[in-house]
Amino acid sequence: MEYIEQNLKNIIAEVPDLDREAMSACEKRQAALAKPPGSLGKLEELSIQLAGITGSVKNTIEKRRIIVMCADNGVFEEGVSSSPQSVTLSQTINLTKGITGCSCLAKHFGNEVVVCDVGVNAVINCPGVIDRKIAMGTKNLVKEPAMTREQAIQAVLTGVEMADAAKADGVKIVGVGEMGICNTTTSSAVLAVLTCSTVEDVTGRGGGVTDAAFAKKKQVIAAALDLHKPDKNDVLDVLSKVGGFDIAAMCGVFLGCAKNRIPVVVDGFISIVAALCAVRLCENVRGYLIPSHHSFELGYQIAANALDFDAYLMLGMRLGEGSGCPIAFEIVDAACAVINTMATFEEAEINDDYLTDIRKTDSFTVVER
Amino acid sequence: MEYIEQNLKNIIAEVPDLDREAMSACEKRQAALAKPPGSLGKLEELSIQLAGITGSVKNTIEKRRIIVMCADNGVFEEGVSSSPQSVTLSQTINLTKGITGCSCLAKHFGNEVVVCDVGVNAVINCPGVIDRKIAMGTKNLVKEPAMTREQAIQAVLTGVEMADAAKADGVKIVGVGEMGICNTTTSSAVLAVLTCSTVEDVTGRGGGVTDAAFAKKKQVIAAALDLHKPDKNDVLDVLSKVGGFDIAAMCGVFLGCAKNRIPVVVDGFISIVAALCAVRLCENVRGYLIPSHHSFELGYQIAANALDFDAYLMLGMRLGEGSGCPIAFEIVDAACAVINTMATFEEAEINDDYLTDIRKTDSFTVVER
Repeated sequence: MEYIEQNLKNIIAEVPDLDREAMSACEKRQAALAKPPGSLGKLEELSIQLAGITGSVKNTIEKRRIIVMCADNGVFEEGVSSSPQSVTLSQTINLTKGITGCSCLAKHFGNEVVVCDVGVNAVINCPGVIDRKIAMGTKNLVKEPAMTREQAIQAVLTGVEMADAAKADGVKIVGVGEMGICNTTTSSAVLAVLTCSTVEDVTGRGGGVTDAAFAKKKQVIAAALDLHKPDKNDVLDVLSKVGGFDIAAMCGVFLGCAKNRIPVVVDGFISIVAALCAVRLCENVRGYLIPSHHSFELGYQIAANALDFDAYLMLGMRLGEGSGCPIAFEIVDAACAVINTMATFEEAEINDDYLTDIRKTDSFTVVER
Repeated sequence: MEYIEQNLKNIIAEVPDLDREAMSACEKRQAALAKPPGSLGKLEELSIQLAGITGSVKNTIEKRRIIVMCADNGVFEEGVSSSPQSVTLSQTINLTKGITGCSCLAKHFGNEVVVCDVGVNAVINCPGVIDRKIAMGTKNLVKEPAMTREQAIQAVLTGVEMADAAKADGVKIVGVGEMGICNTTTSSAVLAVLTCSTVEDVTGRGGGVTDAAFAKKKQVIAAALDLHKPDKNDVLDVLSKVGGFDIAAMCGVFLGCAKNRIPVVVDGFISIVAALCAVRLCENVRGYLIPSHHSFELGYQIAANALDFDAYLMLGMRLGEGSGCPIAFEIVDAACAVINTMATFEEAEINDDYLTDIRKTDSFTVVER
């Protein structure tokens, strides 16, 4: 136990600062591009952030991967979800086939999908699913801690492992998604603790529940927080008492991407809660995070505020899985295209054949018709 | 004059209603897809809108074109811009070379760019620029009407012509951009009239002007509105008195795309003012409009409210040219991918080899470790 906690601490200590020199150089180039200063807004900021992450002014993101962490939650037995628990299993498998919301988009846009089982409540016999099962789902958090502290660390380290694998495979950008019935319940619980928010303020309807189930969901979260009193200054305590294997593993992906200098997209509600966990574990992670869509799920904005984070996409989405990542990748790709291919003021001057022709004919003069 | 105004009226009368039957069929398919109802938000709405536009439940947008209308504005002589007027000319030419903000993105994402001169204040000798010059820029609207009513109609019809050409070329989606120094001034003037807004509420800094030039810009608009008193119920009156050739031509592109059942992306401040003009000319156009980014330019939101329109992208952009279109096209593409390739609830059931394997091994049973 002490050994693996030390292991995590070592990883946290390894996360580098952004490369300020590369950022300055990129900022300078942005200022030289032929446009009103700042007129490409977030596309400019993104290119500067990428420079800080990679150390290069110009970047490309030809290899893109979405890592989807799949797990079940013991709190399911409280009746806080509209879906049967078996949906976690079926969609975990479907994710590998390119037919779910996230994976059909990933397939269409040429993104890789890594599906990782960190705690689905079934034995999975599917070659596309990476088996890192920690347990058959968590315990019911309203009765006992969702997991042990050791399991929480194990889940985080699994996320780091997936980020290390992405680095080894030459992945240029990662997106983080999840599949797990009841994971808006666990995310809301974690978020309430980390941001000292009321349960009311951070709890939405998730996949869509009845009024009664929605009321129950909030009661259950409140009861769990009351029972466990997680220590908001100890992310592992929060994750183990009221979190989920998926959230902890996603937290690890964010941490691991930062360690490996890989830009990483925060997509959706569960994803942003996991990102907040990662930043609370290690402040340096913040610089590696890239927004995606603004989740319709209540609580997203509270997590975004805590991260000083503005979503790029207002699409009213709340599907999860990392389904916004493929579009977010295209935005990052656009930011790369601007810094890589747009002309500077100098280059934008008409100093080629057109200009020569025009000067020859003196047609720069304003002519009255 | 009467002939060309009648010509425009005929085009307006030709704009078809959306295909409600195809929309219902698409809505039904969306409901059958394996996700919580509505959880893909705007991606669902978009697919339904596309069905209404094309008449088909499944659509693809492999051929994408951005039409950029370029023109100068006589009001330039009042000192309301931070850039020299020659920037209109140089960027019009640079647009054909893939090195401006919009065109470098278009090139990167494989979009076509059509650059159309409807009134740049110079003779242009560049094969990539389509010459439909109406005049060497408009008149100074603070002294006289920007253009004649006939010229306004001519500009609108030029836009329709470009939409007709897109249809003939098999283009599946169009985006609308512009290049023209001082066109935030003219757009704010048009918007103030059409929405009965104060000049203060609709006028931003455009490309970025000094405080003095910004104050002057607002004075100039107010003076022009006071002088001409454009009739808000007569779009052609508004366009001719305080508009620009670019805005009028863009209005024509929106109208023409609707006539041709082509979805058309509204990008940026000048674009949305032109779209509002088109919808005021012909209410049916509204159904063909697709949002892009939320322009940083003050006034965008007022135009968006008038169109009951929510931007998809919050990127703080204010470059113009149609620079948001390439990303907006990717969002539309994502909406197509979902309706075309995502599994229905029936298809998402585990009824293939994985399931067989799992059933064989009885591993669906929840196993305690």
